[in-house]
Amino acid sequence: MSNTLVISIDTMGGDNAPESVIDGVSRVALKDKDVFFFLYGDETQIKELADKYHLPDDRYKIHHTTDVIKGDAKPSVAVRSGRESSMWKAIMSVRNGYAKAVVSAGNTGALMAMSKICLGTLSGIDRPAIAGVLPTLNGPVVTLDLGANAECNSQNLVEFSIMGHVLHRVLFQSTQPSIGLLNIGSEETKGRDEIREAASVLKELNGKVNFIGFVEGNDICLGKSDIVVADGFSGNVALKTIEGTAKFITTSLKQTVRSSFLSSLGFLIARSALNKLKAKMDPRRYNGAMFLGLKGISVKSHGGADALAFSYAVEAAVRMARSNLCEKIKEELKHVMDVDVPDMSVEQ
Amino acid sequence: MSNTLVISIDTMGGDNAPESVIDGVSRVALKDKDVFFFLYGDETQIKELADKYHLPDDRYKIHHTTDVIKGDAKPSVAVRSGRESSMWKAIMSVRNGYAKAVVSAGNTGALMAMSKICLGTLSGIDRPAIAGVLPTLNGPVVTLDLGANAECNSQNLVEFSIMGHVLHRVLFQSTQPSIGLLNIGSEETKGRDEIREAASVLKELNGKVNFIGFVEGNDICLGKSDIVVADGFSGNVALKTIEGTAKFITTSLKQTVRSSFLSSLGFLIARSALNKLKAKMDPRRYNGAMFLGLKGISVKSHGGADALAFSYAVEAAVRMARSNLCEKIKEELKHVMDVDVPDMSVEQ
Repeated sequence: MSNTLVISIDTMGGDNAPESVIDGVSRVALKDKDVFFFLYGDETQIKELADKYHLPDDRYKIHHTTDVIKGDAKPSVAVRSGRESSMWKAIMSVRNGYAKAVVSAGNTGALMAMSKICLGTLSGIDRPAIAGVLPTLNGPVVTLDLGANAECNSQNLVEFSIMGHVLHRVLFQSTQPSIGLLNIGSEETKGRDEIREAASVLKELNGKVNFIGFVEGNDICLGKSDIVVADGFSGNVALKTIEGTAKFITTSLKQTVRSSFLSSLGFLIARSALNKLKAKMDPRRYNGAMFLGLKGISVKSHGGADALAFSYAVEAAVRMARSNLCEKIKEELKHVMDVDVPDMSVEQ
Repeated sequence: MSNTLVISIDTMGGDNAPESVIDGVSRVALKDKDVFFFLYGDETQIKELADKYHLPDDRYKIHHTTDVIKGDAKPSVAVRSGRESSMWKAIMSVRNGYAKAVVSAGNTGALMAMSKICLGTLSGIDRPAIAGVLPTLNGPVVTLDLGANAECNSQNLVEFSIMGHVLHRVLFQSTQPSIGLLNIGSEETKGRDEIREAASVLKELNGKVNFIGFVEGNDICLGKSDIVVADGFSGNVALKTIEGTAKFITTSLKQTVRSSFLSSLGFLIARSALNKLKAKMDPRRYNGAMFLGLKGISVKSHGGADALAFSYAVEAAVRMARSNLCEKIKEELKHVMDVDVPDMSVEQ
């Protein structure tokens, strides 16, 4: 088991847990022989589902837990009283070095709070962020922060930029992915103070990172930059607005298909091409929100994820773990920040 | 001319000015006999285009101007040195009571700055806002602020809510349109302080306005509330993200149409239904950003508007002027705020 990577799974989190979780884990296990799973949750259910979905016996170990963090639990309460939960124990296995990453489809706030407490924040990082990947006209784009920090200062935005840079390279084997700061205009005088300050710091860092300036909301889906950096409030608004707009358009299209015989016929004939488009844009392929800035890898799957979606979140965790993401972020912070930047202390 | 409404037009602002502006004005004039236009700009060009687009001679008066505010001019510079411009003069005609509203497709920042200076801010309003109308699954939704105020306090958000409430009623003859505050979660504990504070004030005002709580980015296009209230930064990000997502999806769909013979055929057969959908979602129908909170009506058309789009912005201005929007906002502020709300003074 020398090259085997151990990934811990909270099997009890999410709307379709544990069934779609185990099904998703099986899909990864059957494709990738070098991953071993620690499965935290109800032993009887896990065993049954592992058999049902043909997860080989020698590819997993069950860690029986009895407590589950509820979807609506307050993070502070979950942290205090959830120490016997599948979520806490799965995270602790990463802290204790038994596993390289943890994946959960459970309560986002609780997962973030527990991950921060158990794994700790990387030195040089003021605040961890949540990153995600979006499909765009110009390939996948890494976006952060998606909601961990409703308010950010310029230092946070600079750190997010560097973490996004590392994540993009790790996930997509890119070399110098372009970084855009989300703003409400592309002119230098636009927006909030902290964004303009972050821009001037990032400009100084150019050469080490590829900062291309401000991007606006419409630039995200057009893929103007490979990485979009925002405070957690605007990032969350942008992400959810994309979801809502996509749903609005696809619902309207479906109504159009059904509106007449001719349109039904037309869509039937074009079905094969439409299915390809649907697959390309399938949000399940982009499942997995990554917590960046921690000393370990913690990935949040969408709560409503089905097996396919969950498997993508697990694969993202595998890729992050194999490339030692946390180490890389630490190195990159040292490399990039090793310049005379005011108010930016790497080691605290 | 007793019931005739006078609307001032800056004919020189925008990418396609003055041609699409005059064409758009003509379209409104030919539909609506009770509007008279003051056209500010180059007399020779206007005369020529008015003839070309059959704008009746007795429906307009040209006010010749020689200066034009450039699209990239700084608002502060425009205000100082643009007093001979078509934009300034058109706004001044509203201030001086000769016209009831002004419409321009020119520089947004300059139009806002000039409108604030010339028209003044309504008493009881701390900061004017920019509002727009978006198509959603659930009918048109008024959204504000779209970018006038990158940062807002709770009082601003409450005032935006009341102004949005009045605008929705004026534009769509609604009675108690629902108001949602844009946030990153629907729970009461989520988001920024100013948003939670605004929510608690708006809850107190329920009965007078119809506040339904927090909405998230995905709720905008689904039409969860009739009015979406946000600070100008998030509002701008949301608006532009909708534009970008729509463009991404329609571009991908067009590529799909062209991807094979069968898909081209299918889309050809479904064409009529698709054209209906396209018309329904046509952003030109929603052209016109309204400056709210001023003592006069000022409407900003998209800079790239064609004649049809410009005509919609003019029609929005006509509706706002006919229903005395500014008076209504003033009355509603008095009516709604006439309760014991701390730190909310109506008359300053």
